[in-house]
Amino acid sequence: MQPTFAIGLDYGTNSVRALIVNVQTGEEVGTCVFPYPSGEQGILLDASDPDLARQYPGDYLQGAEVSIRGALEQARRHPDFDPARVIGIGVDTTGSTPLPVDAEGRPLAFDERFRNNLNAQAWLWKDHTSHAEAAEITEKARALRPHYIARYGGTYSAEWFWAKILHCRRVDPEVFEAAYTWVEIADWIPAALTGTEHPERLRRSICAAGHKAFFNPDWGGYPDEEFLAAIDPALVRVRRSLPDRAYDVSQPAGRLTPEWAERLGLPAGIPVAVGAFDAHLGAVGAGIEPGVLVKIIGTSTCDIMIAPGDQPLADIPGLCGIVRDSVLPGYYGLEAGQSAVGDIFNWFVQVVRPEGQDHASLTEAAARLRPGESGLLALDWHNGNRTVLVDQRLTGLIVGLTLRSTPAEIYRALMEATAFGARVIMERFEEYGVLVRRVLACGGIPPKNPLLMQIYADVMGRRLELARSDLTCALGAAISGAVVAGKQNGGYDRFDEAIRAMTGVRPEAYEPDPERRRVYDELFALYKNLHDAFGVSGVEMDLYPVMKRLLQIRDEVWRSKN
Amino acid sequence: MQPTFAIGLDYGTNSVRALIVNVQTGEEVGTCVFPYPSGEQGILLDASDPDLARQYPGDYLQGAEVSIRGALEQARRHPDFDPARVIGIGVDTTGSTPLPVDAEGRPLAFDERFRNNLNAQAWLWKDHTSHAEAAEITEKARALRPHYIARYGGTYSAEWFWAKILHCRRVDPEVFEAAYTWVEIADWIPAALTGTEHPERLRRSICAAGHKAFFNPDWGGYPDEEFLAAIDPALVRVRRSLPDRAYDVSQPAGRLTPEWAERLGLPAGIPVAVGAFDAHLGAVGAGIEPGVLVKIIGTSTCDIMIAPGDQPLADIPGLCGIVRDSVLPGYYGLEAGQSAVGDIFNWFVQVVRPEGQDHASLTEAAARLRPGESGLLALDWHNGNRTVLVDQRLTGLIVGLTLRSTPAEIYRALMEATAFGARVIMERFEEYGVLVRRVLACGGIPPKNPLLMQIYADVMGRRLELARSDLTCALGAAISGAVVAGKQNGGYDRFDEAIRAMTGVRPEAYEPDPERRRVYDELFALYKNLHDAFGVSGVEMDLYPVMKRLLQIRDEVWRSKN
Repeated sequence: MQPTFAIGLDYGTNSVRALIVNVQTGEEVGTCVFPYPSGEQGILLDASDPDLARQYPGDYLQGAEVSIRGALEQARRHPDFDPARVIGIGVDTTGSTPLPVDAEGRPLAFDERFRNNLNAQAWLWKDHTSHAEAAEITEKARALRPHYIARYGGTYSAEWFWAKILHCRRVDPEVFEAAYTWVEIADWIPAALTGTEHPERLRRSICAAGHKAFFNPDWGGYPDEEFLAAIDPALVRVRRSLPDRAYDVSQPAGRLTPEWAERLGLPAGIPVAVGAFDAHLGAVGAGIEPGVLVKIIGTSTCDIMIAPGDQPLADIPGLCGIVRDSVLPGYYGLEAGQSAVGDIFNWFVQVVRPEGQDHASLTEAAARLRPGESGLLALDWHNGNRTVLVDQRLTGLIVGLTLRSTPAEIYRALMEATAFGARVIMERFEEYGVLVRRVLACGGIPPKNPLLMQIYADVMGRRLELARSDLTCALGAAISGAVVAGKQNGGYDRFDEAIRAMTGVRPEAYEPDPERRRVYDELFALYKNLHDAFGVSGVEMDLYPVMKRLLQIRDEVWRSKN
Repeated sequence: MQPTFAIGLDYGTNSVRALIVNVQTGEEVGTCVFPYPSGEQGILLDASDPDLARQYPGDYLQGAEVSIRGALEQARRHPDFDPARVIGIGVDTTGSTPLPVDAEGRPLAFDERFRNNLNAQAWLWKDHTSHAEAAEITEKARALRPHYIARYGGTYSAEWFWAKILHCRRVDPEVFEAAYTWVEIADWIPAALTGTEHPERLRRSICAAGHKAFFNPDWGGYPDEEFLAAIDPALVRVRRSLPDRAYDVSQPAGRLTPEWAERLGLPAGIPVAVGAFDAHLGAVGAGIEPGVLVKIIGTSTCDIMIAPGDQPLADIPGLCGIVRDSVLPGYYGLEAGQSAVGDIFNWFVQVVRPEGQDHASLTEAAARLRPGESGLLALDWHNGNRTVLVDQRLTGLIVGLTLRSTPAEIYRALMEATAFGARVIMERFEEYGVLVRRVLACGGIPPKNPLLMQIYADVMGRRLELARSDLTCALGAAISGAVVAGKQNGGYDRFDEAIRAMTGVRPEAYEPDPERRRVYDELFALYKNLHDAFGVSGVEMDLYPVMKRLLQIRDEVWRSKN
């Protein structure tokens, strides 16, 4: 039997990657990355506002073409490969990254009038300009629609759909008025590839709508007009532009247009799956199943779990959302995350820039330290806290500094802080009955950083495995491409079959060490004190023991070492 | 009239300086520094114990000879100078730096048996090995002699006399037994120069005894045997080796021996004043008077005030001691301090080592920032907190970190943290009725760091002036040399006359700016929250507003700038 192939298109923060995968084996036969050409590393910035981050949507289309063509060129060297045997395409993107479009579904940014207007571009997930509006929406939802906000962890984020739209209305009425509707790029890119951008035809992703825009079929789809009017009457018009239905990744957004097929050198008419967020399809590419916590660890972290969709699931405070079908059809998708992980290490190496040090040398020196030996403890909030506090207006902290604190000690403390943050998330899942049997790590950092992985295993007290693929997001997108193609076209009818065939784990795994775990349990208790003291409103706490206990632990480690 | 000259010998942490001063004008005609040759930068360390810091007492004697001879050589080039016109010597030292000596007053370190024993050396002020013993003494004093500990700010420090002796008894009974008594180097060095080291003849400094060893004439001198026995019966023997009287710096320790006179090329028989701590004589050299807070700012900071000795003065919690005659005869000497100031900036530049940055470049970039602009706030406790918390077991903290926080922002936050620490001390003085009219800065940092001085003026809300001399400690010691010589020998009978003639301030001064002051008032309130939350036992505090308020202030500054 001749193999078939699927393409995953993975839209990241700075670049897009195309990946071509053997549908029967998961073998990755070609890949190509296209860095977005606009702005700084693909991000449009505003010198006067550090919170602003936008993207030019034209970069996405150019990126689809260049990256798929590049991946095809590489795949052609593989003996089994033939572009005619590509059966489907899947797309994952960052999000919530909403884009204002006109009544034809065309981005306002493509209109000369708005070409250079930052508010007419895609509002990148990490754009934090809308924190005041997020607070306003949170407040209104708590008062008027507590069941909405409960499902979103109790707080609506500045990174999300409605906050960004509301902020646009406040700061740029002209763009707001010109926008017929707003679409997530996870919706818009598959639509553009399949000629279904028109708002009447465009299929919205349940992943984006459900996790970021208060969409829930049980509530009648998107939030009701009365609620939106209470926030701002102008939002009612946006609401009326939205459909009542959203789609999961087993469903096609449409079929590749002849124009795109020709530009790409692919068969016209192959299905393109409805898009989803990178982390969600990353979890699919890692091999998600119930009881497994998938951590996609890169500049930031996404934590994904699934739970059977046939029984009710309680709201979990602080989780970015619990949405049925958002990861896999038939399951609740649970999403959590840390706003910065690799970004924090990069900040230390690239911004603080300890002389003569890079990630490798700091990691090597940090690996020689024992837990507790530095006396340092940090909070990993340099970019806010996504889960469980859902608060961008938090900041990093480090305590335990002495005149001898070295860069390697600080670097390890930052690593440990992200591990403590990961443990808070895991404990929150478990507290609400979603048990974690094992942890499956993927993303850019895990294969390159055994020390970090061991620290995570020790801090979390779980066996930690690594996904086989380095490119799980693109692989997960390709899997959705294989599923929308269906069995009769050489793909799959069900995700579990596709996942079994196309994903795997690496042979190496990290086991928690009981002695390190014991020290980390103590440090984690102190971390939790700081976490609650600085992160939770109205908690009165005695923090006097924190510095004392850190020094005691440090001294105990020193003594046991000498 | 022919001018006369006095010599100040200033024993610092890493070196000793001799300074020769014109007694009539304060002109500094010769100086020489001798770095202690032993250990690392003059400090004997123990690789297995980061708290340990000792000094070889032989370095002090070698240092007296080399530095005085060097200063004389320089002074001889001055037309007015003649060694025969040197009328007196004063000595200031670090402290509490106690040294174990035998029944002849000879350091145990000079005995072959103990030559390489770290516990037989001088226990440098910043040795923190004795923190458990300090806690024990604090507890016993609170229970049994509350009036003792009240006069010491409520807490006995690990840096002080009895804690160090008790620690020696615990860890090295052989040295403890071999020591007939323990003397501060402020006592021992003048005694060595005048041949009065024998415990029967040695004059103890009221400054050292009063500020560090529970000496108080009203309580019968050193602490009573019953109290010491309750701590450890072995201390009773040490108590019996101590005299009932202590001396201020207007009194001679003795007269320069013929041997020393020959070695130094000075007239034999000139008086050497009783020693005092560097900061105390530094305040004298700066020009102290009632209502003036003298800040000696270097690696650490000492804050000295005086108050009229003819009226009772309340205990001031957290002050390292209130001792009559300790700075100037007839006045209460009040000592406070910060355990690290320049050391914190040095840690950042030399240990964290941001690439391509030095103090000058960081200061230049920090000077371009406005108060509050970075969103950062730090606690200046990298070496513990001397005043008002009297607790070495505290550590540095920084909060407000983001992925954009730059080295210059961190550097400025560390500068501001030391200014906030300075304000806490000033407010404590004032709260207890010792009003601060102006601040007079001296030490190594003030003349070189206008930005830091402006920050201090803005944070403290006081006019800040700089002492004229760069070497106020040595100058203060020379002033005491001029006073012990007396008027009939070309010196002075009273300190106020000597200070008026021999000291002065620089023309430039720093005035607080009302707008910067306003922002700093807000940041200081947040600093105080952190200070009390981490530094004071049993304080339950809601710290949630800290990160929020820092970001608000940052945003306000950004907005007003753009």
